[in-house]
Amino acid sequence: MTENLPAPSAAPVKTIAFVLYPGLTPLDIVGPLQVFAALGDLVPGYLTVVVGERIEPMSSDTALSLVPSHTFEDMPEPHTLIVPGGLVPTLAAMADESLLRNLRETAARSQVVGSVCTGSLLLAAAGLLEGRQATTHWMYRDLLARFGATPVVRRWVEDGHFITAAGVSAGIDMALHLVGRLAGNEVARMVQLFIEYDPEPPFGPIDWTAADSGQYAPFAGQLLENALTDYPALLAHLSN
Amino acid sequence: MTENLPAPSAAPVKTIAFVLYPGLTPLDIVGPLQVFAALGDLVPGYLTVVVGERIEPMSSDTALSLVPSHTFEDMPEPHTLIVPGGLVPTLAAMADESLLRNLRETAARSQVVGSVCTGSLLLAAAGLLEGRQATTHWMYRDLLARFGATPVVRRWVEDGHFITAAGVSAGIDMALHLVGRLAGNEVARMVQLFIEYDPEPPFGPIDWTAADSGQYAPFAGQLLENALTDYPALLAHLSN
Repeated sequence: MTENLPAPSAAPVKTIAFVLYPGLTPLDIVGPLQVFAALGDLVPGYLTVVVGERIEPMSSDTALSLVPSHTFEDMPEPHTLIVPGGLVPTLAAMADESLLRNLRETAARSQVVGSVCTGSLLLAAAGLLEGRQATTHWMYRDLLARFGATPVVRRWVEDGHFITAAGVSAGIDMALHLVGRLAGNEVARMVQLFIEYDPEPPFGPIDWTAADSGQYAPFAGQLLENALTDYPALLAHLSN
Repeated sequence: MTENLPAPSAAPVKTIAFVLYPGLTPLDIVGPLQVFAALGDLVPGYLTVVVGERIEPMSSDTALSLVPSHTFEDMPEPHTLIVPGGLVPTLAAMADESLLRNLRETAARSQVVGSVCTGSLLLAAAGLLEGRQATTHWMYRDLLARFGATPVVRRWVEDGHFITAAGVSAGIDMALHLVGRLAGNEVARMVQLFIEYDPEPPFGPIDWTAADSGQYAPFAGQLLENALTDYPALLAHLSN
C-alpha cells in the first residue's frame, strides 16, 4: 500500500487529544477518534490520545465503561483538542471547575479546538466561545447564546481555531473534514474508505418537524434542571 | 415527552448484548450500542449490555480501552447478540476457540444474531454462517466464502435470524434498521433524531475505485498473515 501514500514527513508528530469524563456519550468520542486513529495508521505523523482527569474506567451513557490513555498532566503537547458531549453528566460538567480549568489550559496550547454535541457547552462554560459562532446538539442549541456564543444550525461550524459539531454522530463528519484540512482530501477519502463511511440511514434523512416544533423543549429543560440542582445560579442564568 | 411514546409494555425486557474482546475497532461496537442505548432511554423494555470474557479494561485499535458490563457467564438471557469487528486482533480471534465457543453458545440462545465489519468472520469461523448470505468489511469480503457463506455487497444483509453489516460505520445503519423492526419505524426515527444521525460526509459518498481494483488486497493479505502466524492450517485454508 505504501506506494500510494504520502512520503513520510520529518515534521514532528501532531497529537490529537480527545477528552474523556464520566457519563459522556461514547459515540461522541469514538466517531472522531476512529477517524483520527485511521489517519494515524495510514500516514505517519499523527498520534491520538484520550485524556482524562484520572486513568481509570469511567462510566458512559451506555453499558460500556471507557479508560483514557493519559491524564491532563502527562499528555503530549496537543495539536488538536476535541471535547465530546453527553446528556445530564455533560450538562452537570458545565459546573465542574476542575474539568473546565483543564479544558481552558489545554485549549490555550492547542492549534485546533473542537467539540462534538454538547461538548461545545463545556467549551462555552469555560469561556472559550464568547463572540464566536458555534453549534451543539439541536436540543441545547439556544444555551450557547447564554455563554455569549452565536448558535448556528449546521453539521459543523468553524470560527477561528474553534470547530464545533452538531449532535453525536456529527463528530464523524467534522473529523473527516479536519483530516482533509490536515492531511489533504485524498487521505481523508482513504480514511472514509477504511471506516466504510458510506451512510445509508434506513429511514432517510432526519425529519426535523418534532425538533423544530419545540416538542422536546420541556424534556431538555428537565434534564438541565436535574443536572444543575446544586448550581442554582448557573441554572437560573441558563433558564431565564 | 411521554405523551409521544408508546405505552409501557408488560412484556419482559429484551436484552441486546454486544460482544467485547481485546483489540477491536471501537466504532464497530459503539455505533450500534449508542443506537440501542437511545432506544432503551426512549421506550421501556430494552436493556443493552456489553459482554466480555473478563470484566477488565480491554485495548482497542485506538488509544481508548473499553470495559464490558458483564461476562458471558453472568449476562442476562440475550434477545439480540451483536459481534463487532476489527483488524489484526479480530482476524487472530478467528482462531480463539474460547471466544468462538462463547459466541456459538450465546448465539444459540439469541433470537437475532448480528455483526459489524469483520465481526461476521468470527460468526463464520464459529460455523454459524454456513450456507447463509453475509457481508463484512470490503477488504475481507472474499473470506466469508472460505467458511461456506455467500458474500454479498450491501450495507447490511439479513438471512434467517442472522444480520451482518459492512465495515465499521455500517453498524449504525444496521442498528437503526433493527430498532425499526423491534420497536417500529417511528421509534427508530426518534432514535435517529436523538443521535442526530443526518450524515454529511464532507467528501460525498465513497469512491470505490481503489477498493474495487484490488489495490489493497496485498495489504489485507499481509494483515491476515500477521494475525494467523501461529495457525498455519487456518491461514492456508483462508489464503488458497
